[in-house]
Amino acid sequence: MTDSISPANKLGTIYGIGLGPGDPELLTLKGYRILRSVPIIVYPKSPDGRCISRSIVAEYLQSHQLEIPMILPFKPGESSQPGYQKVADELAIHLANGQDVAVLCEGDPFFFGTFMYLYNRLSDRFPAEVIPGVSSIMASADMLGIPLTYRNDVFMAITGTLDAEVIRDRLALADAAVIMKLGRNFVKVYGVLEELGLLDRAKYIERSTMKDQKIIPIREVDPTQVPYFAMIVIPSQWKWREG
Amino acid sequence: MTDSISPANKLGTIYGIGLGPGDPELLTLKGYRILRSVPIIVYPKSPDGRCISRSIVAEYLQSHQLEIPMILPFKPGESSQPGYQKVADELAIHLANGQDVAVLCEGDPFFFGTFMYLYNRLSDRFPAEVIPGVSSIMASADMLGIPLTYRNDVFMAITGTLDAEVIRDRLALADAAVIMKLGRNFVKVYGVLEELGLLDRAKYIERSTMKDQKIIPIREVDPTQVPYFAMIVIPSQWKWREG
Repeated sequence: MTDSISPANKLGTIYGIGLGPGDPELLTLKGYRILRSVPIIVYPKSPDGRCISRSIVAEYLQSHQLEIPMILPFKPGESSQPGYQKVADELAIHLANGQDVAVLCEGDPFFFGTFMYLYNRLSDRFPAEVIPGVSSIMASADMLGIPLTYRNDVFMAITGTLDAEVIRDRLALADAAVIMKLGRNFVKVYGVLEELGLLDRAKYIERSTMKDQKIIPIREVDPTQVPYFAMIVIPSQWKWREG
Repeated sequence: MTDSISPANKLGTIYGIGLGPGDPELLTLKGYRILRSVPIIVYPKSPDGRCISRSIVAEYLQSHQLEIPMILPFKPGESSQPGYQKVADELAIHLANGQDVAVLCEGDPFFFGTFMYLYNRLSDRFPAEVIPGVSSIMASADMLGIPLTYRNDVFMAITGTLDAEVIRDRLALADAAVIMKLGRNFVKVYGVLEELGLLDRAKYIERSTMKDQKIIPIREVDPTQVPYFAMIVIPSQWKWREG
């Protein structure tokens, strides 16, 4: 690959494209334009073969585009960093040859995303641009039909992976919140919500904006069936009157 | 208007369209499709005549679309609610006649938006749909080129309108944060950041993704020139190693 010649000094740009929460139509016009124009598309692939981000925009991809799946370990305790290094090294060759690269990122690339691992390795040497995307945080409240925040609210995004005490102490100070990364952490989070008297306010949604989106009353959720991409939304109580 | 006849029982839908942070190209494909298809467009207009949300998508609007500007008081202590009621009453007539209405919302409609005031008044009687938009929270970090959150971070969105003590106590517990609604609150917020030793981490951005976007080192910001739509971004410190 290194023997192909690029126009002098013309480096490729690495784009991190925020794809949004799952509905392909929630891609931005800018994301769509860049996705259609680049010769190289990069996306994570789980060891069992799933490519969630690719599946969101599959209908927009073109057969002449080179696809580079990143296969990264998902086992606890196993670092993904050598995998990112390997992909970054490969992308550096394409970028040095003047070819633009788009990295597919669910939601927004810099909000709990993995794009940063490539960005941090490549943006010092190559032009890099982040294309913002719709976050599942906002989309989940939108799909539930409940206004999330209001006026002077303090809003928090908390991951269910934290200890129950940490979740409880932060949540107690939030006017509105979302709890992400549920999966097997659902039972722990449910206990915290119960302790704080939040079970009536909290709403549960799975795979927001996707075709198989599910909204389930939180007391009826089967804890053994909660996917990692489920979310609990605790909307504002509208304590600021008028305005 | 009430004498025009609609197809039996066909009600119009009220859409809240999230326009994103300011770059017209950060509108979603879905938002664009709906914006182009509805006969009626509604947006806030300040008493001095500015229509910020309309200006974001001005190039997409069509001359045959009916535009309804909402003129609402912005004076402290004066309630906007009678103004929203008046607009809701007017929109109800169009919706009852089967006409779809799109309400323009900067960012995402349910994240610190005013769309809720129309939604709460109309969604019980008419079909209502919220089209998620890119939030300026994520877009600001993207434009600054700094990954915002990572792994198990607790993220907070805090408004500069709160008391210094409240901002300080919440911020002290955040792994990453944005501070919104700055304007004349900048000096107060700056003091809190100084007290918490956050001035090196905090980044300042005005009008992110807009043509007149400005990024200024936070120590060099002129406090008398800070617009309401400026934001301070405090990115994660990457305390979770590897992954």
